[in-house]
Amino acid sequence: MAHEFDLIRTFFQPLSQVATPDIGIGDDGAVLSCPQGQQLVVVTDTLVEGVHFPIDTAPEDIGWKALAVNLSDLAAMGACPAFFSLALSLPESKNHLAWLKAFSSGLRDLAEDHQTPLIGGDTTRSDRLTVTVTAHGWVPAGKALRRSGANPGDGLYVSGHIGDGALGLIAVNESLNVEDYAGALQKLNRPEPRVALGSLLSDLASSAIDVSDGLLADIEHLLEASQCGCEVNVAAVPYSQAMRGYLAQNPQAWSLPLTGGDDYELCFTVPAEKEVLLKERTCHLNLPITQIGRIITGTGVVLKNAPKGVQTLEHLGYQHF
Amino acid sequence: MAHEFDLIRTFFQPLSQVATPDIGIGDDGAVLSCPQGQQLVVVTDTLVEGVHFPIDTAPEDIGWKALAVNLSDLAAMGACPAFFSLALSLPESKNHLAWLKAFSSGLRDLAEDHQTPLIGGDTTRSDRLTVTVTAHGWVPAGKALRRSGANPGDGLYVSGHIGDGALGLIAVNESLNVEDYAGALQKLNRPEPRVALGSLLSDLASSAIDVSDGLLADIEHLLEASQCGCEVNVAAVPYSQAMRGYLAQNPQAWSLPLTGGDDYELCFTVPAEKEVLLKERTCHLNLPITQIGRIITGTGVVLKNAPKGVQTLEHLGYQHF
Repeated sequence: MAHEFDLIRTFFQPLSQVATPDIGIGDDGAVLSCPQGQQLVVVTDTLVEGVHFPIDTAPEDIGWKALAVNLSDLAAMGACPAFFSLALSLPESKNHLAWLKAFSSGLRDLAEDHQTPLIGGDTTRSDRLTVTVTAHGWVPAGKALRRSGANPGDGLYVSGHIGDGALGLIAVNESLNVEDYAGALQKLNRPEPRVALGSLLSDLASSAIDVSDGLLADIEHLLEASQCGCEVNVAAVPYSQAMRGYLAQNPQAWSLPLTGGDDYELCFTVPAEKEVLLKERTCHLNLPITQIGRIITGTGVVLKNAPKGVQTLEHLGYQHF
Repeated sequence: MAHEFDLIRTFFQPLSQVATPDIGIGDDGAVLSCPQGQQLVVVTDTLVEGVHFPIDTAPEDIGWKALAVNLSDLAAMGACPAFFSLALSLPESKNHLAWLKAFSSGLRDLAEDHQTPLIGGDTTRSDRLTVTVTAHGWVPAGKALRRSGANPGDGLYVSGHIGDGALGLIAVNESLNVEDYAGALQKLNRPEPRVALGSLLSDLASSAIDVSDGLLADIEHLLEASQCGCEVNVAAVPYSQAMRGYLAQNPQAWSLPLTGGDDYELCFTVPAEKEVLLKERTCHLNLPITQIGRIITGTGVVLKNAPKGVQTLEHLGYQHF
């Protein structure tokens, strides 16, 4: 069994060096300088084994995902990731070198991609693996994206494909052919936070949220904060080839991608006069940006072009309790 | 059972208003402005039920303690608390209004004392109560206290009384008379982070750490970071009346206060030429400040005036694993 301080030195200290090397692990806290003209954005997300990821998820993927879901929140605020802390509650069965090495390597892969150092944290023992990351980013003062800025007339957009996280979970739970669902499993286990898009949006979008609880649930959060409604054109929601194949075989599951969680795409609104700029500025991102509806007065989501003329769904997404 | 968003609105949103009211809960992240000339200090500590506090600890006390242990880390860095986030993993047995009300009221008591708002977080379900707080503070640029600044000749000091946290735990585990150990139980359940002292020390101390793992273990951390040794005069270590009474009845337990955790006092070193200033500046704090030794060249702790001439102990403090 590893001693806490050895474990930190071996597996986590190296992650403090992926960017600014003078930020320290090993004191009571980390000390950081604030770039002039920037505001600090702070986000926190916890993953609990068996609740937020299947029990037998590879430790590399748990490490990646714990940071990814937080960077996704930063992206939704238009912030550039800066550093993060890690609180790791570890059952005895996982407190060994192979597990820790794998976990920290997945975490490091994503931290390096975004040049985001680990600045500290806490490791504790528990009987349930629980990983809390608090991630910090910088955003030019006054430029943070909020959920609350949408206005009637704004276009409603999403990045990437919707529903693959949920499809990946089905593939795991129903032991479907791994090769057929490789993309969905990748999305479930190694979501790519849309950081570059978030940064671009801070000048373009009137509101934004990341899609983590399910597309319709997250749109609902955005609408509540903005005090308006929207129409969603179900036929326009972008699906991957795997999802299209799955829905062709399981047409009764049509609402799965609209309500499934774990997408980590951005959903955002853009005023009509900026929609051309949006296309110009995002065309180099190699990421589909799709209009799926428009903000209207009123409250709630109205579905268009859904099977059987359905206009509303009772369960919009993931319930945390 | 409470729905996550109702729960946040009812119990946690009010904690965002104890200081700066424009800092928001309810978006993907919080946005904060950085005061000019200050550096950000970030600390993270997790409490796991049954590991870091007894299973039947009152929810008010869990709420208080989860923040207190973090503010104690900020104090050890000389930082002034600014805001904090909360990741709460909640078993079903505690996901009800009475528990949440009590937990959030204890948290609020301490947050109000230090005018430190809650800025966000995450609530998840789990089968083991796990509370992670990430607290943030400000310190004048370049003035953060470190573990690494001690030099031979510096005086070694502690605040308050040592060992009462461990004595409180014994009182709980051995069901001792609650009235006889009221002070120790208060220390175990509602430690007072030494924030005012930490702020004062940033101009006086050459190094500092908070005493959480046990006095000797934490001194050892400070010595490792500073690459020096120290002599600790065991006879000078300040004990409460309850601890003196306990040791009189249990003389074989003499090392308990030196190795027990959960004190949340500050241990720090002061260069000889500043020791008079230390007395002058801290005399109004209504907090004992006691010299317990001196930094020397070499490595490790040498005990003086310990029973039977003992000079070293094998187990210095709390092992996290």
